[in-house]
Amino acid sequence: MTKELNVCLTPVLIPLYNVEDHVVVIIDIFRATSSICYGIENGAEAIIPVSEVEECEAYREQGLDYLLAAERNGEVVAGFDFGNSPFSYTKQKVAGKTVVLTTTNGTQALHLSRKAKKIAIGSFLNLTALCNWLKTQDENILLVCAGWKNNFNLEDTLFAGAVVEQLKTTGLKLDDAAIAANDIYQAGKNDINQYLKKTSHGERLKKLGIEKDIEFCLQIDITTAIPILDGDKLVKLV
Amino acid sequence: MTKELNVCLTPVLIPLYNVEDHVVVIIDIFRATSSICYGIENGAEAIIPVSEVEECEAYREQGLDYLLAAERNGEVVAGFDFGNSPFSYTKQKVAGKTVVLTTTNGTQALHLSRKAKKIAIGSFLNLTALCNWLKTQDENILLVCAGWKNNFNLEDTLFAGAVVEQLKTTGLKLDDAAIAANDIYQAGKNDINQYLKKTSHGERLKKLGIEKDIEFCLQIDITTAIPILDGDKLVKLV
Repeated sequence: MTKELNVCLTPVLIPLYNVEDHVVVIIDIFRATSSICYGIENGAEAIIPVSEVEECEAYREQGLDYLLAAERNGEVVAGFDFGNSPFSYTKQKVAGKTVVLTTTNGTQALHLSRKAKKIAIGSFLNLTALCNWLKTQDENILLVCAGWKNNFNLEDTLFAGAVVEQLKTTGLKLDDAAIAANDIYQAGKNDINQYLKKTSHGERLKKLGIEKDIEFCLQIDITTAIPILDGDKLVKLV
Repeated sequence: MTKELNVCLTPVLIPLYNVEDHVVVIIDIFRATSSICYGIENGAEAIIPVSEVEECEAYREQGLDYLLAAERNGEVVAGFDFGNSPFSYTKQKVAGKTVVLTTTNGTQALHLSRKAKKIAIGSFLNLTALCNWLKTQDENILLVCAGWKNNFNLEDTLFAGAVVEQLKTTGLKLDDAAIAANDIYQAGKNDINQYLKKTSHGERLKKLGIEKDIEFCLQIDITTAIPILDGDKLVKLV
């Protein structure tokens, strides 16, 4: 059987796929999966994704030496160590540490994909490392775009299209969304930052004053670590 | 307030929009909305979209002189006059008649959009007439892609992108999906038939032996009628 390369454009559509038959890649470019890739690259022992701020809070009460990261609507939740700005995931801050993270879109997509054969985390930071690893998997692949509040967004889809670009010559069968994602990548690849400026999300994040984060998240291949879900934790694939 | 031009990529995402604040266009290129445009152009008095085959059946029992059209999974349901092949909607067959129609995706998208300010039907057949009319509406516009079994498909999105192409210079604010749809249109516009051949849906319909229908549905501007929902019926906008 020809293996498939499918793209799920928003978490709402996850139930339409048999995730248990796929290796899943979670994509939340601005900023959760970029920060996770950066944190794992920088020696974080593990990053624990949780759905609710309250779950994150519960870890504090256990008295463990965990860093607690909570973001909602693009901002750090009051009382938490940090949110999902990549600049909070430097070596200095996270090396040897475990981070508990909840974000608006990314962790939700991850939880809805729980039954997948494997779950990896993708971002422009680890693009080629991720693709090289995916090429070694003899499995159907599902790229899950976290989107924004359950709807489609361009940056996650464009990144999915960048993955399709590296995998499309390997004989995988692309679904319609994979073809579309690759066309969007073609439209934007020459200047991704400029391309994404016209999007709603770009404006939203600009209002939050995090243009620097955006630029950071659009750097290609500055890391090689592949965060992978092991039980409840994202750890470095070895 | 700047008016918006939004694209809803699948019916599953309709609840994410305030449809009551939009003029909605329903898009189901292969083949429901193409056939509806052709049927209304050819003098059908009305086309009544219903969700279930049983509802369609119920009209038979009323003893009215209605044509009953039912399609599921791309095929005519046994016992019905016809399905949604455009060749069933010729002048000879439908002029002066009322057709009751249920299809896999199109009528569902329509029913989920019921609360919209107005609901029109779009296809390549009436593209420019539709766009010219939309330009006269001082309202937010939502282009609803019927998709395939609740998931994304390329042909409906590409058509949405063709509408965006004609409207994007009018000052409307595009959402991410509208930008994406327009990029997909740019990628495919030079040979839409060829472009769509690589899609899953193209293959699916090819298996059903309806390549002629597909070619028919990709003809641009061969009609000018705009079917619009009036109560329970789609009628010609006058």
